[in-house]
Amino acid sequence: MADRAAKPLPLALTLGEPAGIGPDITIAAWLRRRELNLPAFYLLGDEALIARRAKALGADIEIAPVSPGEAAVAFTEALPVVSTGERATAEPGKPDASSAPAALASIRQAVADVREGRAGAVVTNPIAKSVLYRAGFRHPGHTEFLAELAADGGRVPQPVMMLWSPRLAVVPVTIHVSIRDALAELTSELIVSTVRIVAAELTSRFGIAQPRIAVSGLNPHAGEEGSLGHEEQTIIAPALRILRSEGIETRGPLPADTMFHEAARSTYDCAICMYHDQALIPIKTVAFDDAVNVTLGLPFIRTSPDHGTAFDIAGTGRANPASLIAALRLASRMAASQS
Amino acid sequence: MADRAAKPLPLALTLGEPAGIGPDITIAAWLRRRELNLPAFYLLGDEALIARRAKALGADIEIAPVSPGEAAVAFTEALPVVSTGERATAEPGKPDASSAPAALASIRQAVADVREGRAGAVVTNPIAKSVLYRAGFRHPGHTEFLAELAADGGRVPQPVMMLWSPRLAVVPVTIHVSIRDALAELTSELIVSTVRIVAAELTSRFGIAQPRIAVSGLNPHAGEEGSLGHEEQTIIAPALRILRSEGIETRGPLPADTMFHEAARSTYDCAICMYHDQALIPIKTVAFDDAVNVTLGLPFIRTSPDHGTAFDIAGTGRANPASLIAALRLASRMAASQS
Repeated sequence: MADRAAKPLPLALTLGEPAGIGPDITIAAWLRRRELNLPAFYLLGDEALIARRAKALGADIEIAPVSPGEAAVAFTEALPVVSTGERATAEPGKPDASSAPAALASIRQAVADVREGRAGAVVTNPIAKSVLYRAGFRHPGHTEFLAELAADGGRVPQPVMMLWSPRLAVVPVTIHVSIRDALAELTSELIVSTVRIVAAELTSRFGIAQPRIAVSGLNPHAGEEGSLGHEEQTIIAPALRILRSEGIETRGPLPADTMFHEAARSTYDCAICMYHDQALIPIKTVAFDDAVNVTLGLPFIRTSPDHGTAFDIAGTGRANPASLIAALRLASRMAASQS
Repeated sequence: MADRAAKPLPLALTLGEPAGIGPDITIAAWLRRRELNLPAFYLLGDEALIARRAKALGADIEIAPVSPGEAAVAFTEALPVVSTGERATAEPGKPDASSAPAALASIRQAVADVREGRAGAVVTNPIAKSVLYRAGFRHPGHTEFLAELAADGGRVPQPVMMLWSPRLAVVPVTIHVSIRDALAELTSELIVSTVRIVAAELTSRFGIAQPRIAVSGLNPHAGEEGSLGHEEQTIIAPALRILRSEGIETRGPLPADTMFHEAARSTYDCAICMYHDQALIPIKTVAFDDAVNVTLGLPFIRTSPDHGTAFDIAGTGRANPASLIAALRLASRMAASQS
């Protein structure tokens, strides 16, 4: 009883690219905290940057410089900012030399906070990979960097990207590679390891006792019994046999085109897809504004809005906070389910 | 004025696989002719088969054996059937030796009727390719067979498959081939010839003076400037330059995942996609019941419901005529636009 009554830990929200819309949507989400009953969060960043952006947006808000432990209480009256010690000087739409160090420090500190029990989950604002690459960043992306931080000297976990919305959840087995490379990367082993992580976390973090997992084919009509491609028979079906032998409820390989209409979606908890667009087309078609990017496979919860830095509208007030709001809510729900 | 007042030609509806749901949805559509103000059509088939199926379905209908010229008048009171001379003896769900000859005769006669001015368009019920193959059919599918019939001794036209709904129209450049083969088949020439046909027919048969055409990339994020694949730069962009030089309004290559949400769809008349699922996933997600398969590139109009023979529910009354109804309506609209 005491545990249940305890206030949940606040969410650690990273700054993202300071010149992008991260600060804008953070401010916009905080302004709607009461109306939407949002979970408490704190931004890991530079208080002065947020104050400048709030001014640019015409948002008359209080900013509270806090420690993570003070964030939940401060949240009701002020936007809590935990300093990373890195100043961010970029103007909206114009990343500068301070951008990469500020973005990276925020991510590192968020991971430390969640791992050391000061935050309930990590929610990340969008970064600009090209800005980080120019500063010497060597990871393929945000998610892989988080996996490296999670390794903490040990084995690097396999991060699994899920796109989640109340209407559909999808996981691409191969992700940010060309279609040609996806064909080369797709193996039974990769499908098995991915689905194992998805099934385990649908139970531990989404509270679904026996997850129902639908698995797409690679080819049109799931290969039509081999006449339109062989990967269904040589790669996907063998993976599903292994997964079923472990007690994981999977259906497939299914024709991808008939998996995503409303009636079909109601028959499973998550769709496993073979490549990026097979997963992203349907979810962005049915949940363009409020899909959430969730990283499974990490030793902590991480969600993220499903959009980029949108440099062209940073500082204008036109950025839509819907996906960040959905990411905050889902992180809070996952943290509660886990605890 | 006289022309406009003239009754439009009836639509020639093929039988499809006699053991499939073609007869069921034909009867169901005809029963709703008044309620939905459907265009007049006649079925090319075997009157006795339709009478048996109507009885199985408990549908107390009149069947009128007619010639095409009598169909439009007969349609108001009876389901007009034009005999092909081929008896169809198959029970629901059980194709027999009469299935292939009956299905093929119906298609041949429909093409002859439309080419010789007795019908306004061809609407085809679903066939079972495996049944036809066993009977010696040697075409890859329905559409290619229609293209052969259209050639009529001359050059075989390039048929282009469009999936159309009031919410989205899509055209896959490569169609019923494995993903691996789609990569091999995709060329600038194929994109150019496909889009030319789409643009011309959006004008001539859909009444869109200056069609707006959106073209997807092949790879995730449309290749992200070459870092996730090169086909956008080496194949798709050069095709679009040619098309634009011809005055065809194209945008692309666009990231496929952000092309299909409601706001994006409103910016174009047709989406050109690089492979089957890239096109079929979004349209079946947003228009599962009432998408229509339209064949462009033929010297006549052909539409078709976007589903198969559904042997498992033939004769049960559970088949949904929505896609056939949409196919009949679109064919009628296209015929009117063309005339």
